[in-house]
Amino acid sequence: MTARISLDTVNDLPDAAFTEQFAGIYEQSPWVAQGAAAARPFSSVTALAAAMAAVVAAADGDRQRDLLRAHPDLAGRAALRGELTPSSQSEQAAAGLDSLTPDEMERFQRANRDYRDRFGFPFILAVRHWGKSHILAAYEGRLGNSLAAERAHALAEVDKIAFSRLLALVVPAATGRLTTHVLDTARGCPAAGLPVTLERIRGGTAAVIRQDRTNADGRLDAPLLEGAEMEPGLWCLQFAAGDYFLASGQPLTAPSFLDLVPVRFAIANPERHYHVPLLLSPWSYSTYRGS
Amino acid sequence: MTARISLDTVNDLPDAAFTEQFAGIYEQSPWVAQGAAAARPFSSVTALAAAMAAVVAAADGDRQRDLLRAHPDLAGRAALRGELTPSSQSEQAAAGLDSLTPDEMERFQRANRDYRDRFGFPFILAVRHWGKSHILAAYEGRLGNSLAAERAHALAEVDKIAFSRLLALVVPAATGRLTTHVLDTARGCPAAGLPVTLERIRGGTAAVIRQDRTNADGRLDAPLLEGAEMEPGLWCLQFAAGDYFLASGQPLTAPSFLDLVPVRFAIANPERHYHVPLLLSPWSYSTYRGS
Amino acid sequence: MTARISLDTVNDLPDAAFTEQFAGIYEQSPWVAQGAAAARPFSSVTALAAAMAAVVAAADGDRQRDLLRAHPDLAGRAALRGELTPSSQSEQAAAGLDSLTPDEMERFQRANRDYRDRFGFPFILAVRHWGKSHILAAYEGRLGNSLAAERAHALAEVDKIAFSRLLALVVPAATGRLTTHVLDTARGCPAAGLPVTLERIRGGTAAVIRQDRTNADGRLDAPLLEGAEMEPGLWCLQFAAGDYFLASGQPLTAPSFLDLVPVRFAIANPERHYHVPLLLSPWSYSTYRGS
Amino acid sequence: MTARISLDTVNDLPDAAFTEQFAGIYEQSPWVAQGAAAARPFSSVTALAAAMAAVVAAADGDRQRDLLRAHPDLAGRAALRGELTPSSQSEQAAAGLDSLTPDEMERFQRANRDYRDRFGFPFILAVRHWGKSHILAAYEGRLGNSLAAERAHALAEVDKIAFSRLLALVVPAATGRLTTHVLDTARGCPAAGLPVTLERIRGGTAAVIRQDRTNADGRLDAPLLEGAEMEPGLWCLQFAAGDYFLASGQPLTAPSFLDLVPVRFAIANPERHYHVPLLLSPWSYSTYRGS
Repeated sequence: MTARISLDTVNDLPDAAFTEQFAGIYEQSPWVAQGAAAARPFSSVTALAAAMAAVVAAADGDRQRDLLRAHPDLAGRAALRGELTPSSQSEQAAAGLDSLTPDEMERFQRANRDYRDRFGFPFILAVRHWGKSHILAAYEGRLGNSLAAERAHALAEVDKIAFSRLLALVVPAATGRLTTHVLDTARGCPAAGLPVTLERIRGGTAAVIRQDRTNADGRLDAPLLEGAEMEPGLWCLQFAAGDYFLASGQPLTAPSFLDLVPVRFAIANPERHYHVPLLLSPWSYSTYRGS
Repeated sequence: MTARISLDTVNDLPDAAFTEQFAGIYEQSPWVAQGAAAARPFSSVTALAAAMAAVVAAADGDRQRDLLRAHPDLAGRAALRGELTPSSQSEQAAAGLDSLTPDEMERFQRANRDYRDRFGFPFILAVRHWGKSHILAAYEGRLGNSLAAERAHALAEVDKIAFSRLLALVVPAATGRLTTHVLDTARGCPAAGLPVTLERIRGGTAAVIRQDRTNADGRLDAPLLEGAEMEPGLWCLQFAAGDYFLASGQPLTAPSFLDLVPVRFAIANPERHYHVPLLLSPWSYSTYRGS
Repeated sequence: MTARISLDTVNDLPDAAFTEQFAGIYEQSPWVAQGAAAARPFSSVTALAAAMAAVVAAADGDRQRDLLRAHPDLAGRAALRGELTPSSQSEQAAAGLDSLTPDEMERFQRANRDYRDRFGFPFILAVRHWGKSHILAAYEGRLGNSLAAERAHALAEVDKIAFSRLLALVVPAATGRLTTHVLDTARGCPAAGLPVTLERIRGGTAAVIRQDRTNADGRLDAPLLEGAEMEPGLWCLQFAAGDYFLASGQPLTAPSFLDLVPVRFAIANPERHYHVPLLLSPWSYSTYRGS
Repeated sequence: MTARISLDTVNDLPDAAFTEQFAGIYEQSPWVAQGAAAARPFSSVTALAAAMAAVVAAADGDRQRDLLRAHPDLAGRAALRGELTPSSQSEQAAAGLDSLTPDEMERFQRANRDYRDRFGFPFILAVRHWGKSHILAAYEGRLGNSLAAERAHALAEVDKIAFSRLLALVVPAATGRLTTHVLDTARGCPAAGLPVTLERIRGGTAAVIRQDRTNADGRLDAPLLEGAEMEPGLWCLQFAAGDYFLASGQPLTAPSFLDLVPVRFAIANPERHYHVPLLLSPWSYSTYRGS
C-alpha cells in the first residue's frame, strides 16, 4: 500500500487535483469526485464518502445506470484480459476471483449472464471480504429482487466499494474506538471481574491484542482500540464467562453450559464507535452493535 | 476407562452389589447408594443420580455435614500423600491440580484454610472441567456467601460430582440429542439455507463433526447429535451468517459486522435434549439453551 | 362487511368474472387481476396475493409507475371531492384521515406536494392500521430515500394494501395459528406453570380471549388461536412472570423487577403461524416472531 | 405514613435511640439494630440496610433460626387475633391477606403447617407487592427446596422485608435515576426520534408521568426519573416502535408486527440507577436491567 494522504491534504487540494485524486473511487466515473469537491472541507473519510454518495444519489436515473454499467463483471471478460482498473483488480483478487477452477469460472459466467439479462447492468458486490462461494450465493439471492429494489441494492454496493477505496487513499480521522460492557441478566447487575481478550483475525489465525477484566460497572477502564488501532477487518472478543460464573457463585452444571464466549465481528468504518456488549446468563447470551 | 455397565445391569444387581458398585459415587459415603437401591428400576442415569441426590437431601443436617467433610481438600494434604480416592485423584488431575507451582500450591493451601475456617467443611467443586486459575477464583466468590447459602452450594457441587462419576460407570440412556434453529429477527422469518458446522473441542483443538444447512423452517433435517454421540464436554456450532445475509440480499457493511458466528457450549447431561438456537440479525444475535 | 367468498369460489370463477371480482385490489388496475387469473387454483389468500404481486413485479417500469400514479393522495383532492374508490375511502377513514383539523390538512397537502416533487408519484402507505401523526412521520422518513429505494418501497406498500383488500373479499385458509413458548434463561429450562393470558385489543380496549398455563415444556397444550380465530389486528399476550418466579423460588427484589410481562403484537396474515415466544429471566426478557 | 427522618438524623442519633428507632426493622429482633449502630455514618438507606443484614449474616445459626421463628405466619393465628406487629399487619394487608375467603384461609393454614413441618420455621416472604394467589404458589415452590437452600432463601426474604421497612422510616439518598436507551438491531444504530412515555402504575391504573423522544444516540436528554421521583413500585415504559419504524422507512407488514412496546417493571431500591434499555427490530425486542 502506498502512503495514504491526510484529510488536511485532501481539503487543501485544488479542485482539479481533488478530482484527479479520487477519479477512480467510483468506477470510471470522475464526475462523482468532481461533484463532491465543493463540499470540502471534510473532517472525516466518512464525510468525504457521504459527499460523494450524495452526488450519485442526486444524479439522474440514466447517469446512475451508466455508473452501474461501468463496473466490470466479477471474474468476467475484462478480468480475463487483464483490463480491470487497479482497484477492481485488487478487490477481485482479495476475494479469490483470480484463481477459479474451470467449473467455478463457468458458474460465474452463467451467473453474470443471468443477472445482466434480468436487470440490464452487471452484478456488483463489495467482494473484498467475501469468498467465492459466498459471492455465488449472493447472485442467487439478488436475482429474486425486483428491479427497483435491486437498483437500490447495487447503488448501495457501489457506495461501499467507494468507501473502502477511500480508506486505502486517505488516513481516517482518529475518532473511532472499540468498547464493551458485560451485564449479568440472571442477577440483574454488571458482570464485574470478567476477563476479556481481544483478538485480531487474519487469514483464519487469531492474534491476541489485549487482555483486560471488566470493572465494577461491567466495562473496561479504557477502550479496547482507539484511533489508528481501529483497523477495518475481523476481530474477536473472548469473554471468559465461566470464570465469572464461578467467582460469582452462580449454580452451574458440570461442565457449565457456557464457558468461553467468543464474539467475532468486523470493523468496517474505523472512524466510528463500535460498542460490542454482552448480555450474559449461565444459559444464554446476546450481543449487538451498540452505541 | 473400564467398560461401563448398562442400566439393565444396574437394575438387576442385588441390593448389596448395587451399594458396592456405587459406594464411591458420593465420597466415602456408601449409605447414599444403599438408600437409593430400593428406588430401582431406573430408566436413565439422570434418574439414578436423582434418586441418590434425594437420599442426601432427605438426610439430616449432621449427616450432610459429614458428607461434606468426607471430601478431600483440593490440592491438599491427602492429595500430596497420594491418599485420594481414585475418583478424586482423577478429577483433581483433570483440572491440573496435580502439577501446581509452589506459589499456586501455597495459594490453594491458604484458600482451603480460609474456607474451612469460615464454613467448617472443605471447599467442594466439580473441578474436572475447570482450570486452576478459575478454581482459585471460585474460592473467593464463595467465601462471600452466607453459611446457609454455601451449604446449599456445596451439596449441589457434591451432586454434580456424583453425576459425573455415574456417567463414568453406567452407559447413559440414548434419549439425548442436539438440535438448532436459526431465526432472522431483522426479517421475522426462519433463516433458511444457512450453513451450520458442528465441532468437537478437546484440549483447545476443534474437529469438524458435521456440516449441514438450515431448511425452510430454519432447522436442520436431523439432530446434530443423537444417543451415544452426545458426549459430555465442549462443542462449538459455527453459523455462517454472512453467507446467509448475502444470499438473502440484506443490506450489509463491507466487511459485514457479522460473518461466522461461533457458539461454544458444553453438554453436561448426555441424556437430555440440548436445543441451541440462534436469533440473528445483521447486527445482533442471541443464543440460549432452548427446549 | 359484505359476506366474503371462499377460495373454492375464487378458483371456480370464469376468467372474466375473476378479473372483475378483483379489479380494484390494485388501485384502478384490473390488468393485475387479469394477469393472475391463469395461476389458479389458489390454496390460500396468501398464494392469490403472491400471484397478483408477481404480475406487478413482472410488469415493465412504465406500467409500474402508472400503477403508483393511480393511487390517490392521502387526504388529497380526490378525498375532499368524495372521488376515492370505496376501498381507498374506507382505508383513509380507518386512519382518521377523513377528520383532519385545518392545520393537519395543510401538513398533509404540503407533505404530498414535497413527496410528489421528489419522486414523481404519490405517497403510498398501507394506512389502515396507523394514526395520522404516524403517517406524517412516515412521509418524512421516506423523503430521505433514493428514488430506486423509494420505488421499491412504494410497490411493497401497494402489495400490502392489495393483501388487506383481498382479506376483505375472500375467506382465508384455516392454516394459521398462534402459539407461544416460555424459556427460563436464568435457569436454562422451560418455564413451566407460567400463567398466560391472551387479549384482543380494539380501539385501545383489551378483551380477555383465553387464559392458560405453560406445560412442562414451557408451551401451551393447544394453540392460543387457530383457523378462523386468527383475526388480523392487535393482540396482547400477558405473561405472569412474577407468579412463575415466586413458584420457582428464584431470588427476587421486593417488588420484583418483572411481574406481568405484556407483549403486544399484530397479526397481519391470518393464514400464517405466529409463534411469539418469551425468553425470560428475573431481570430481562426477549420476544420475537418465531416459527 | 408518618414523616420520614433524614439520613443525617439517623447518623446523629445516640446509640440507644438508634436501636429503639429501628428495633422492629427485623421482626422482634432489636439486636440487629443494636449491632449496626456502630457502623454509622451511613450515606444511604442501602448502606444502612446492608449493615443490618451483615449483623444477621454474622450471627450464629441458632440466632438466625430464632429470627426466622420470630416471624408470624401469613394469615395465621397471630393475624386472626390481631397480635401482629404494626409492620407485619400493614404488609399482610397490602397483599390482601386480611380479607381471605374461608377456602383461601384454609389453604394458607395448610400451607403454613406443611412448610413449618418441613423446615422448622414459618414461611417468610416479602409479600407487600404480591397477591394472595401468587403467595400460595410461592409456598409450593419453596417446599421443594433443601433445608440449607430454604434457610438461605428465608433469610434473604427477611432482609428484603427489612429494606422495605427502612424505606418507610428514612428518606432515601437522592442518588437514584431511571434512564433508557433504544437500539435498532435490524439496522445496527441507535433508534433516534422514538417517542417514549413513562407511566406510573397503581392499582391497575396507569398515569402518564412523562413523554419524550429519543435523541440521535437513542437516549433521552434527561433521566426519566431522578432523586425523590424514584418511587418504589410499578412503572411502565411505552416505546412507540411503530412510529419509529415508519419514520425510518423499514419494511413492515400491515399492520406491523410491533407497534407500541410496553415494558412494565418495578423499582425496588430508589437509590439505585435503573437503566431499562430496549433492543428493537421490527420483529423482535429485548429489555433488561442495565447499568
